[in-house]
Amino acid sequence: MTVKKLSINYKTLEEFKQFREYGIQELSMLEDLQDNMIENDSESPFYGIYFGEKLVARMSLYRVQKELDKYFEPQQDYLELWKLEVLTAYQRKGFGKELVEFAKGFGLPIKTNPRIKSADFWNHLGFTSVNYDVNRDLGENPLVWYPKGVSAQARPQSSTSDLTDTTE
Amino acid sequence: MTVKKLSINYKTLEEFKQFREYGIQELSMLEDLQDNMIENDSESPFYGIYFGEKLVARMSLYRVQKELDKYFEPQQDYLELWKLEVLTAYQRKGFGKELVEFAKGFGLPIKTNPRIKSADFWNHLGFTSVNYDVNRDLGENPLVWYPKGVSAQARPQSSTSDLTDTTE
Repeated sequence: MTVKKLSINYKTLEEFKQFREYGIQELSMLEDLQDNMIENDSESPFYGIYFGEKLVARMSLYRVQKELDKYFEPQQDYLELWKLEVLTAYQRKGFGKELVEFAKGFGLPIKTNPRIKSADFWNHLGFTSVNYDVNRDLGENPLVWYPKGVSAQARPQSSTSDLTDTTE
Repeated sequence: MTVKKLSINYKTLEEFKQFREYGIQELSMLEDLQDNMIENDSESPFYGIYFGEKLVARMSLYRVQKELDKYFEPQQDYLELWKLEVLTAYQRKGFGKELVEFAKGFGLPIKTNPRIKSADFWNHLGFTSVNYDVNRDLGENPLVWYPKGVSAQARPQSSTSDLTDTTE
């Protein structure tokens, strides 16, 4: 099982169509490629695992800069992880775990906003819930992974919404 | 059909359990109430519609401050909308639309990150896709609603991930 950084090209983008979470991100990459806004084989934020010639698992990883970190103490660069997905026929064989362990290998804290009902998978890999803060988390249910020496950022107590009823 | 701002109390939190997207946000509100971190009947970011005595639809709304606006031109306060949900037995009766129209009534731009497969609903209400930007949008598929005189923020061309392989 080898995790590879995926290039943006027509073959990869065609393979992405097999994944349930194919959306605006993939469409945008396809348009940029068609419009020559990016070169064929430009680097993407995606990593994947091939089984033979077939892409069977993938995730997206992005390094968020220290200045924007609202999750970790000390404040630092961290990885946002999303679109972790394994094709149905290839699930429960360790592909998802392999991708997450690869992400951990960068030695940075990781934050993800997982789908509902995937809690067991993430807990098993050492991810924990944050203390929900409406100002920061809004509609997210963040899970985080702390490398050694990293902990949760101290937060002011969550305030309720400051939305005033301007319609009344 | 009247949209009401929901207070945080045991009755409301019990009703929230009937919604599919019950999660960390609701649990956090329950804990804060139990630990006396917030008062009974504190304001929540939730709005809802009652059918008789029963809460049948809800959404969460939060006013994001101008300084954090990465979506709208001119840069301004906008509303983040999430957890828009109508109980199954009450769907297709206009409750969802009523909530969104209520949100529009504040006169601010709105941003939401909808569930997959709800595109028709949002398009019908005048929401449109943003130009995906990995730096800003990460794992989101944002839809936005522009009031008169507001347009999309001009963005630098989306760059690919700057995550360097520190493991190599």
